[in-house]
Amino acid sequence: MEETMPDRIDINCDMGESFGAYKLGRDNEVMDYISSANIACGWHGGDPMVMEQTVRVAKEKGVAVGAHPGYPDLMGFGRRRMDLTLPEIENYMLYQIGALSAFAKAHGVPLQHIKAHGALGNLAFVDLEVSKAIGRAAARFSKEIIMVAYSGTVMVQAAREVGVPYVEEVYADRVYNPDGTLQSRKIPGSVIHDPEKAARQALTMVREGYVVAHDGTKIKVKPESLCVHGDTPTAISILQKIREELKKAGIAVKPLGQ
Amino acid sequence: MEETMPDRIDINCDMGESFGAYKLGRDNEVMDYISSANIACGWHGGDPMVMEQTVRVAKEKGVAVGAHPGYPDLMGFGRRRMDLTLPEIENYMLYQIGALSAFAKAHGVPLQHIKAHGALGNLAFVDLEVSKAIGRAAARFSKEIIMVAYSGTVMVQAAREVGVPYVEEVYADRVYNPDGTLQSRKIPGSVIHDPEKAARQALTMVREGYVVAHDGTKIKVKPESLCVHGDTPTAISILQKIREELKKAGIAVKPLGQ
Amino acid sequence: MEETMPDRIDINCDMGESFGAYKLGRDNEVMDYISSANIACGWHGGDPMVMEQTVRVAKEKGVAVGAHPGYPDLMGFGRRRMDLTLPEIENYMLYQIGALSAFAKAHGVPLQHIKAHGALGNLAFVDLEVSKAIGRAAARFSKEIIMVAYSGTVMVQAAREVGVPYVEEVYADRVYNPDGTLQSRKIPGSVIHDPEKAARQALTMVREGYVVAHDGTKIKVKPESLCVHGDTPTAISILQKIREELKKAGIAVKPLGQ
Amino acid sequence: MEETMPDRIDINCDMGESFGAYKLGRDNEVMDYISSANIACGWHGGDPMVMEQTVRVAKEKGVAVGAHPGYPDLMGFGRRRMDLTLPEIENYMLYQIGALSAFAKAHGVPLQHIKAHGALGNLAFVDLEVSKAIGRAAARFSKEIIMVAYSGTVMVQAAREVGVPYVEEVYADRVYNPDGTLQSRKIPGSVIHDPEKAARQALTMVREGYVVAHDGTKIKVKPESLCVHGDTPTAISILQKIREELKKAGIAVKPLGQ
Repeated sequence: MEETMPDRIDINCDMGESFGAYKLGRDNEVMDYISSANIACGWHGGDPMVMEQTVRVAKEKGVAVGAHPGYPDLMGFGRRRMDLTLPEIENYMLYQIGALSAFAKAHGVPLQHIKAHGALGNLAFVDLEVSKAIGRAAARFSKEIIMVAYSGTVMVQAAREVGVPYVEEVYADRVYNPDGTLQSRKIPGSVIHDPEKAARQALTMVREGYVVAHDGTKIKVKPESLCVHGDTPTAISILQKIREELKKAGIAVKPLGQ
Repeated sequence: MEETMPDRIDINCDMGESFGAYKLGRDNEVMDYISSANIACGWHGGDPMVMEQTVRVAKEKGVAVGAHPGYPDLMGFGRRRMDLTLPEIENYMLYQIGALSAFAKAHGVPLQHIKAHGALGNLAFVDLEVSKAIGRAAARFSKEIIMVAYSGTVMVQAAREVGVPYVEEVYADRVYNPDGTLQSRKIPGSVIHDPEKAARQALTMVREGYVVAHDGTKIKVKPESLCVHGDTPTAISILQKIREELKKAGIAVKPLGQ
Repeated sequence: MEETMPDRIDINCDMGESFGAYKLGRDNEVMDYISSANIACGWHGGDPMVMEQTVRVAKEKGVAVGAHPGYPDLMGFGRRRMDLTLPEIENYMLYQIGALSAFAKAHGVPLQHIKAHGALGNLAFVDLEVSKAIGRAAARFSKEIIMVAYSGTVMVQAAREVGVPYVEEVYADRVYNPDGTLQSRKIPGSVIHDPEKAARQALTMVREGYVVAHDGTKIKVKPESLCVHGDTPTAISILQKIREELKKAGIAVKPLGQ
Repeated sequence: MEETMPDRIDINCDMGESFGAYKLGRDNEVMDYISSANIACGWHGGDPMVMEQTVRVAKEKGVAVGAHPGYPDLMGFGRRRMDLTLPEIENYMLYQIGALSAFAKAHGVPLQHIKAHGALGNLAFVDLEVSKAIGRAAARFSKEIIMVAYSGTVMVQAAREVGVPYVEEVYADRVYNPDGTLQSRKIPGSVIHDPEKAARQALTMVREGYVVAHDGTKIKVKPESLCVHGDTPTAISILQKIREELKKAGIAVKPLGQ
C-alpha cells in the first residue's frame, strides 16, 4: 500500500534490439524520455555493435543501463517459451549479464539492473523457481544489480528469497487482467496505443497505487518503475504525455539506482 | 635475450570448447597439468553451461582463468578468417570477455588473461591493427587483464601501444617456420605428437630462449607462457613429460598473474 | 493385430548429427547394420558437410535416406521443447526436408522418409495437430515421402488425415510405459544397453506384435520399422545381435520404400 | 556486341531478407515490378516463415523464384568474406538451394535460378574456382537451374565449364568501374538513387549493349537480366521508371526461364 504519493519514478524501456543489418525501434528518440534502458544482450536481439552503440547513447543521455537477457532464440525474438532447466536459465542469464556488463565497464557506467525479456520474463511472472534462477544469476554477478520485478508477482518473492535488490514495475501501455497479469498480446487491444489513456493509467498507478483491469477491477500495484514499450507506433507520444503529466504532478523521473 | 634462466613458467591450454551435446577435449584431465585455462566464450565453441563448469573446475584445481574469444563461426570452430572491421573485432572481443567474466565473478576468481582463438589469433600474429583492436577490448574491460601475445610478433607491439599488460607465449607442440611463425596445420607433421620432442622444444625455449625451426634456424623467443594443445591425442603425455622436465630443471609452473 | 509374422523389417537410426569440429556417433559403423538413416538437417545437429558425407556413405552402403528435422536449437540438440505455432512447425520441417533433399538429389537417391527429432518428435507422439503439421510439410514436399510414425500414437492418425504415406515404428532399445509411450530418458535404465535384452524386445515385437512394458503390461505394436539409437555405447553390439536374431527368424532387413 | 536490340529482359531483385521479428525491404511492392525474385535462404537473411510468404507472393504475382544463398553469417548479413574451402561453398549452396526448393515445390512453382548473395557473390565475380563451386551446387541439384552470372566475369566461364545454364546480368542502379566491376558500396554515390539515371543506364545496357563507367569508359555488357536493389529508398520509383522506359522501347519484362 502506497500511503503517500511518491515524488519520483523510473521509466524503463527495452533498447538495443537491432541486429546486424536489421534495425528495430527508435532508440535514439525514446532514450530522451526514459531513465533506465533494458539493453538486449545478443540472444533474442542485439549484437556487440548495437550494445556498444546503445550503452554509449544511454550514457550520453544520462539513462541508466540494465541487461535485458532472453532465450537463445533470435528467430523467435525470445518470445517463444523454451523448456530450459533451472541451471540453464541461471547460466544463460549470467552469460548475457556479463556480456552487457563489458560495454558498461568500457563506458564507465554501472550495470544498474536486470530485466528478463519476452517469454522468459512472462514465465518468471508466474514461476517462482524461474524467477529465483534469474535472481541467482544477478546475485552471483553482483549484489548491487537491481532485479526488475513485475509488481505483485512471485518475482518479488524470488528477489527477497535470493537476496538481490529489486524494484517493482508496472506497465503504462498494457491492459491488465483482473488477476494482475497482463492481457495477452494475442488479444486485440491489449497494447494501449492512445497516449492519453496510457498516461492516465501510468499516473493512476504512480499516484494512487492501483490499476484498473479490463473488467473494472482495481488492482493494487507498487510502481517503482514504469515500463513503456518502444516499439508501439505511438511510443514517443505516449512517453511525452506521461512525462508531461508526471511533471504536472511534481513527480521526477529518475533511474532506479539513484 | 634471456640472460638468466627463469625459475618459473606458465602453461596455457584451450579449455571449455564443448558445446551442448557435443563434447570436445579432455578438460578435466588436462586441467591437472596447466596453470592458465583459455576458456571459450560461446562463439567458436563453449556455451554457458560449459563455461560455468570449466571455470568451476579451473578454480578447484588452482588454474587461472582467461577468455578465449573467437569469430562468430561455430560451424567453422572459429578457424576460418572473416573480414571483420576493427570496431567489430573490438566489440566482439569485449562481448566475449564480458560473458566469461561473469562466470569468473560468480566463482570469485579474477579474469587473468585474454587470448584470441583460431583464425583470429593467427591474423593477430601478423596484423598490428587487429592485435590493437583485441588489446583495446581488453584494456577497455580492465587494465589488469593480461594479453597473451605470440612471442616476437606484432601482438607484443600492439599490447605496448594500447597499454595493456602482456606476456609472450611460445608453443611446445607446434613446428616453427624460420620466420618465427607456426607451420600451417595443413602441413602434415606441423603438430608435434611425440612427448619427448615437445618437451625438448619446450625446455630449450624456456631455458635457452630459442626454438629450432623446421630448417634448423634458431629463433629467439621470450617464453613467459607455454602453450600446449589439449586436443592432441598425446596431450596428457606431452604435458606430463614437460612438467617432469621442468621439475628436473627447477622451473616452477605458475599462472601469469602471480 | 499382426495375424502373420512379417518376413521383413526396416531398421532406422539417427545419423549425421556431427557439427563442424564436433563429432557425434559412429555413423560409418552403424550404417553397416541399418536399412534407413534419419539424417540431421542442420538445425539440432548436422551441417552441409556432414549431410553430404552422410548421404554419400548411406548410398554406398545401400541405406535409404530420410530427413530428421528438429527444433532450431543446436545448443540444446533439439531436445528442449519450444512453443512454436503450427505454421512455424510446418515451415521449419519443410525447410529442413528441402535442405536434405538437395544432398539426396546430388547423389541420385530418393528421399525416402521423414522422422522428427528429439523434443519435437516426442511432442508429435501426443499432439495430433503437431503431427499433422509435420505430415503436411512432408505432403507439400512430395506425396511419396514416408512419415515414420511411432506405433499406436496420434502420428498414425495424423498421417492418415493428412494423406501422407506412413509406417509404424517401434523401439528396440527403449523401455516402454504401460500406456505405450517411452519411459523418460531421465529415469535411469530407460535406455536398454544390453544387446540380449534389446534383441529380445525387438524380436518379440516383430514376431509377436507386442512389447512388454516395465510393469509387465503387454502392449500391441505394429512394427514396420525398428528404431535403434546409434549413440548407445553398445549400439553396434545391439545391432549385431538384432540382425543375428532376425536372420535366424528368417526376417529380412530392408528399407521402407522397397 | 548485341547486334540486334532484344525484345525482352528479365528484372531480378533480392527478396525475402526479413528474419523473425526483423523486417527488411518492401517486398510486396517491389514484387509488382520484377520478373525474378532472388529469395534469401535463411543463412544471411530469411527464415522459413519468410521464405514461405515470399514464394507465395511471388507465385501470386507471376514472379519466377530463385535461390539467393549466402555465407553463414546472419550478423553480417552475408556481406563479410569468410575463408571457406571450395567443398564448403559447394555444400553450403546445395543446402540453401534445397531449402528454398522445398517452398517452391510446396507452391508448385519451379526453382528458376540461383544467384549468390553479398560477399560470396562479389568473390564469385573474380574467382573462377568459387564460381565453379557455386555452379556445381546448382548442377548437382538440377541441370535446369539457371545460374545468374555477372556479365563479363569469370562466372560466365564457370557456368560454361560446369555445364549449367546461365544468363548474364547487369546492374541498373550501381556505378561501374572501368574494368567492368561494380564500384564499392563504401564509395559514396556508388548506388544510384536517381530513377532517371538508373533507367537511362538500364536502357542503354539493354538497347545498346554497353554501360558507361564512372570515368566515361564504355564497357560492353550482355544484359539478359537487370538487377535492381530493393532496399534503395527510391527502389519503387527506379523500377517504375525502368518499366516505363522499357515499355516505350517495346521491350517486354519476362522471367529468365520463359
